[in-house]
Amino acid sequence: MITQMNVRGLLFDPYNNAYIVILRDEQNSDMLPIWVGKSEASAISFALESIAPPRPMTHDLMKAILDNIDAKVLSAVVTDLKDNTYFAKIHLWYGDSEYSIDSRPSDAIALALRAEAPIFTTEEVLRKQNSEELERWLENLKPEDFGKSET
Amino acid sequence: MITQMNVRGLLFDPYNNAYIVILRDEQNSDMLPIWVGKSEASAISFALESIAPPRPMTHDLMKAILDNIDAKVLSAVVTDLKDNTYFAKIHLWYGDSEYSIDSRPSDAIALALRAEAPIFTTEEVLRKQNSEELERWLENLKPEDFGKSET
Repeated sequence: MITQMNVRGLLFDPYNNAYIVILRDEQNSDMLPIWVGKSEASAISFALESIAPPRPMTHDLMKAILDNIDAKVLSAVVTDLKDNTYFAKIHLWYGDSEYSIDSRPSDAIALALRAEAPIFTTEEVLRKQNSEELERWLENLKPEDFGKSET
Repeated sequence: MITQMNVRGLLFDPYNNAYIVILRDEQNSDMLPIWVGKSEASAISFALESIAPPRPMTHDLMKAILDNIDAKVLSAVVTDLKDNTYFAKIHLWYGDSEYSIDSRPSDAIALALRAEAPIFTTEEVLRKQNSEELERWLENLKPEDFGKSET
């Protein structure tokens, strides 16, 4: 079973100097917290807020390349979680074939948001991910630690 | 006239907390210093040192997408310098056509290095760029300021 997920927000994690992308399913019953680096968080944040930077950022370029050659982003799928690392695939349609390309979730999400393509994950990933870690992290967090709250 | 440039190294600029990509022509008579952000510098540095990260970084993904759909990077061209901002284009070959895509030089260089594609600039850009700025910067620099010297 595959579940569609929405990007609900980005949190700043001051303890790890990293960001957490919060994915939630449409019923708000499942959540995936994915830790990402600063530049990936910024790429995701620009797309969430529809900010058009004066020069194309890296994922804008990726989207422009795909647009130029008429390739379409079908979806981004968070496919696995192993040793605290999430894995993803970007599904592309081009010519008359589908291509599936290995990616970090941060890049897959940053690209999917720009292409207005859906983001999915599997039940297995949702089962594997242990939200206790995030809950502990949230409990220890002070309000001023938040970079940006959920939208 | 168009001149082929090689990436000769990356310098860390502690004053601006940024990096400088040094491009030189083959005769070592012309130089372009291009200021780039940390993540772009890291993308260029990984390619220069042929480091294969455990998971694909953003420009590795871009290269993987192009490889998957059989698009070839022909070249990266630094096309202009306006108000201290360099502009670049990535030239792609795909199907039976050439595509030229607007890019920041940092992305164009990071992608060209991965694709083993040549990097060019124009005489006009070389004429416009004022290396005095870099020379002043270098004169004021202490040896310990260097992140990585030229290779």
